[in-house]
Amino acid sequence: MSAFAELWAQLAPVGRDAESGGYLRYAFGPAELTLRSWFVAQAKARDLVIEEDGNGNIFAWWGDPAAGDAVLTGSHLDSVPHGGAYDGPLGVVSALLAVDELRARGVTPARPIGIAVFAEEEGSRFGLACLGSRLLAGLVDPAAAAALTDREGVTLDTAMRETLGAGPVGARPDLLGRFGCYVELHVEQGRALVDLDRPVAVASAIWPHGRWRLDFTGEANHAGTTLMADRRDPMLTFAATVLAANDEARRLGAHATIGRVQVYPNATNAIPGKVSAWLDARADSPDTMEQVVAGVHLQAQHRALADGTKVTLTAESVSPETEFHTGLRDRLVKLLDDAPVLPTGAGHDAGVLSAFVPTAMLFVRNPTGVSHSPAEHSTDTDCEAGIQALADVLQDLAC
Amino acid sequence: MSAFAELWAQLAPVGRDAESGGYLRYAFGPAELTLRSWFVAQAKARDLVIEEDGNGNIFAWWGDPAAGDAVLTGSHLDSVPHGGAYDGPLGVVSALLAVDELRARGVTPARPIGIAVFAEEEGSRFGLACLGSRLLAGLVDPAAAAALTDREGVTLDTAMRETLGAGPVGARPDLLGRFGCYVELHVEQGRALVDLDRPVAVASAIWPHGRWRLDFTGEANHAGTTLMADRRDPMLTFAATVLAANDEARRLGAHATIGRVQVYPNATNAIPGKVSAWLDARADSPDTMEQVVAGVHLQAQHRALADGTKVTLTAESVSPETEFHTGLRDRLVKLLDDAPVLPTGAGHDAGVLSAFVPTAMLFVRNPTGVSHSPAEHSTDTDCEAGIQALADVLQDLAC
Repeated sequence: MSAFAELWAQLAPVGRDAESGGYLRYAFGPAELTLRSWFVAQAKARDLVIEEDGNGNIFAWWGDPAAGDAVLTGSHLDSVPHGGAYDGPLGVVSALLAVDELRARGVTPARPIGIAVFAEEEGSRFGLACLGSRLLAGLVDPAAAAALTDREGVTLDTAMRETLGAGPVGARPDLLGRFGCYVELHVEQGRALVDLDRPVAVASAIWPHGRWRLDFTGEANHAGTTLMADRRDPMLTFAATVLAANDEARRLGAHATIGRVQVYPNATNAIPGKVSAWLDARADSPDTMEQVVAGVHLQAQHRALADGTKVTLTAESVSPETEFHTGLRDRLVKLLDDAPVLPTGAGHDAGVLSAFVPTAMLFVRNPTGVSHSPAEHSTDTDCEAGIQALADVLQDLAC
Repeated sequence: MSAFAELWAQLAPVGRDAESGGYLRYAFGPAELTLRSWFVAQAKARDLVIEEDGNGNIFAWWGDPAAGDAVLTGSHLDSVPHGGAYDGPLGVVSALLAVDELRARGVTPARPIGIAVFAEEEGSRFGLACLGSRLLAGLVDPAAAAALTDREGVTLDTAMRETLGAGPVGARPDLLGRFGCYVELHVEQGRALVDLDRPVAVASAIWPHGRWRLDFTGEANHAGTTLMADRRDPMLTFAATVLAANDEARRLGAHATIGRVQVYPNATNAIPGKVSAWLDARADSPDTMEQVVAGVHLQAQHRALADGTKVTLTAESVSPETEFHTGLRDRLVKLLDDAPVLPTGAGHDAGVLSAFVPTAMLFVRNPTGVSHSPAEHSTDTDCEAGIQALADVLQDLAC
């Protein structure tokens, strides 16, 4: 069994749902905490020095972190509900094994090398993606973040206090100032590398993307006795909006998804009083993304008039386009045998950090192209190629 | 404070959700158990004899129940999630107060009078409406019922064992054979009595009605990175089906509602792998109801072809039309000063029992017409008129 296969097998059962085969690794929940402890033990076994930043993020250092100009790598350990095994953990495991590889090569870093585990990257528990890196970078007020609630009404503050001993501290410019660059390795979330017949790519940019909440309100009533003409059914407005989002995205060459919905009271024999839904929109430019959202909102409002319902749109998080550092990108492409350069529609902590330090990403081939699902996959051979590529990059940058 | 207002005030806080103002009184859950205990105490305070049937139903008897040919009244204490205060409890409270009224009138029943509290009438916990009366009548196999699960995966068997000490026993022909007739008083679920300027109506029939589960399956994937053309998104097929159900019901003069949905994984940044939804359909004839369901299924299948998804339709419970006993109905209409006669789209335990014993229903005016919602309402004056009407009916039938 390869070193990768061995380490990977340790993670396989943690937080896996037996029925779906996917993972339930919510930030600060039991499975993610198990992975955090596992990471700390792995780092200590490698004589790396652990540093926690008070925002739920963990850093493991090789070399003196106080020296500054560090070469940072890593990813996250949380998952979307019933997500795949690779999104996040592959970057963390690859970083640990890249350190092993550099030591096996006998090289000595001239700059500190850090492995980061960022908290709540998916935003699946508290609704704000890249929460850990945003807090660290000072992009979210810690008091506002502390008040965010999960679906059971537990605040981030409570969740962090009960597991880490304290709520979020917010901006850590002292820590951020010690990062010289950040390189995140991630499973590919698409099928470009299969067609290109290459195991590893370098990222060009992250599409602008955002999340909007749509609240449709009508009048709860009896499903059996209420005349169709007397209804104010927000499920109808919601349904028309789902179709409008799909049409708008196709028309404008963007991506739009409504994948999460909450219905009140959600009973078979009751017309709902309220439906809340979340619109995820992404495009190759902020203008196009805004056009998609405006088009969806307009169609929702028109339908609401016909249904006698009301609709409100609230932006929950909107990220501008992130073009990664071109100098760093070109250096990696050259180093990795003219690796292909790919954009991505997915947000990452690398997108947050890129506003502060030169940042790059490596993608490892995913033969299914599927992500955020149990079908997400990468072969051991490709994962090992990813580790070699990351080791080459860290050696080139730090040694 | 009137006797009605006093008794009613005792129920007001039990299971009330502070935010919605509606009730969470799931069968065998804490609030419904509190109401059951309350009912038993009220019955004992009136020297009524309590009889439990092993299916979660409770009967309180005035006179010797073994005498047979009993005049049964009553209703249920469970609610739809965030439902109103009147649907169910009004029939139980009115029955208790009608007994008080008959005693105040000094009449002596020649036939036993029973007050029934039926379990899980709404089907909001275990998915099968009128579960208690169906079990009693032998219309549901007790082993199959025992295996029904709620949304947390708790079986009916477990829920009953933990609260009542044993699972359901099923058919009780010995008990059913002692019922001479059944008269259920219920809040009106519509606005006919407001227009007719009358406080109480007699039911003519219950429309045929049923529940069907629609399972839409596609492929879970990343909302940001998956090309629109590569998606197999079951949320789209679901949305088109919601609109189709509404259109079919309007076209055919029926009622159709999709008020309950479950999305997997239900995450903002994931295309769902599966969406399950429940279709509630009702019409003035079984043929029309079947046409509605067939039309919805056909349109769902067409849309699924376009979306690359699959849809399956499963009937969960289908009830034929229930025309109430015409002799009993006419007797009540005459007795109640030519009360209006109204059909209803709602199912009731009275619909189940009507196949076995002469059965009738009384409806008490609901000025909003709204039901299965916190807005469900009846004035104290109308509730008191309902109690007088029920007392008149019981006196006429039993004395």
